[in-house]
Amino acid sequence: MELEKRHTLIKEWLAVIKDFIIKELNKERIIERKSHWNDLVTDVDILIENYLIKQIEIHFPGELILGEETADTRIAMNQINIEEERLWIIDPLDGTLNFITSQKDYAVLIAYYEKGIGQAGYIMDMNSYDVYHAFHNQGVYKNDQTFQLKNSDAQLYEGFVAFNSKVVYLERYEKIRQIGKKCLGVRGTGSAGLEAVNLLNQYTVAYLSSSLMPWDIGAATILLEEAGLKSSDFEGRDLKLTGSSSVIYAYPSSFNEIHHHLKNEKNEQ
Amino acid sequence: MELEKRHTLIKEWLAVIKDFIIKELNKERIIERKSHWNDLVTDVDILIENYLIKQIEIHFPGELILGEETADTRIAMNQINIEEERLWIIDPLDGTLNFITSQKDYAVLIAYYEKGIGQAGYIMDMNSYDVYHAFHNQGVYKNDQTFQLKNSDAQLYEGFVAFNSKVVYLERYEKIRQIGKKCLGVRGTGSAGLEAVNLLNQYTVAYLSSSLMPWDIGAATILLEEAGLKSSDFEGRDLKLTGSSSVIYAYPSSFNEIHHHLKNEKNEQ
Repeated sequence: MELEKRHTLIKEWLAVIKDFIIKELNKERIIERKSHWNDLVTDVDILIENYLIKQIEIHFPGELILGEETADTRIAMNQINIEEERLWIIDPLDGTLNFITSQKDYAVLIAYYEKGIGQAGYIMDMNSYDVYHAFHNQGVYKNDQTFQLKNSDAQLYEGFVAFNSKVVYLERYEKIRQIGKKCLGVRGTGSAGLEAVNLLNQYTVAYLSSSLMPWDIGAATILLEEAGLKSSDFEGRDLKLTGSSSVIYAYPSSFNEIHHHLKNEKNEQ
Repeated sequence: MELEKRHTLIKEWLAVIKDFIIKELNKERIIERKSHWNDLVTDVDILIENYLIKQIEIHFPGELILGEETADTRIAMNQINIEEERLWIIDPLDGTLNFITSQKDYAVLIAYYEKGIGQAGYIMDMNSYDVYHAFHNQGVYKNDQTFQLKNSDAQLYEGFVAFNSKVVYLERYEKIRQIGKKCLGVRGTGSAGLEAVNLLNQYTVAYLSSSLMPWDIGAATILLEEAGLKSSDFEGRDLKLTGSSSVIYAYPSSFNEIHHHLKNEKNEQ
């Protein structure tokens, strides 16, 4: 089975990456600035991404690759219709700033899409080294064992909500922040991949981020939808595989509560 | 030496508590509501607090105890002048909601004050089981080894700032949240004790919380001041050992940046 072949390979790649990262811990890092003063990349991000690209090119020549550090500019420029392609979306280190500061709370993310439909998503949680994966219409697995949610649904008052940094400090997200009042408390790890893991384990009931790129959400969306959670942007639209998007991931009841709250915001304006 | 005797006992107590908590993990919990719907306490909090109170009463009869779950109402009602007393301040589980939801990101906190001056502070980080402690004017220790900060100072742009939930969602903290723009990113664990550990390890450069009780800050303040960090409430006043207080803990330069920002807030109003 074609997807099984990919699964076997991806597990091998993740094992190699895990060993590589563990060996690189506690070493001096080469850190470079990308677009902004706080948009940083390390030599570890780049080495992992190059490794994955090489493996994909060897085993699946001709398939498109959208990686955080080497994004195919033809995709970014919309010169390729990804809805017609076989597409890999990878984030070698999701939570690079966490990796730099604490070496905690980061993840490795790999996703594979066909004609715009997520076929396989992988998150390796680098705190625990647990690998979560999902195939389209085949449920969620943790370390290759069937994974069940604690509860298939949860309301806001039953758990924590996580926000990304910009939701916390930008004035225009005032109404979104007030969702924090309706839940047990507000959290934030700085890694969208780990936020997906926290949702799967029901450590949180919702995650809201003002701006995420395809490599932040490619794997998470497959895993969370396969687990029965809901996803959209702040306006309720489906998440896109290109460009930057706001993101809501939540348990169904919390998702409805959040959109009800956001709709009322518009009515009040 | 009197403080050494306390140190030996407290280490024994923490070892007992650690073993007890580990045995209690993954069991059904008895959870009770305290003041609000999201102010919860478990049987584990109460059993640990009762254990500590009993130990203190056996070894140090007559000394005052201010514990989260059984706070001496004479202290809360200001019928006792704690500035004249030998006072224990304990939080059996700091981060109870985290303990309930994820069994991650919580801590055990013990502090001992004489005449209002912190003599000994202990934080047991229950993610790693590391015990951080400090004696007055004798520096900080991690697992009984001398602990040095990575850098004795840090500016906001060099690290993360952590907020508590209310700072994130209450409108009146708009200006405080904007400090998030000046740093690497915003984080929040939901445990003031762990935020102190994150500061000691320079995973963050500042922590701001809208309202903390003496048992949240009793140990942290001793450890952080002993490490050379700064503390105050949002108005720049010294932290109090009674009642609820806003709290800023930060590296010296970040502390100055934050108070400069908050002062400008007042001028702009």
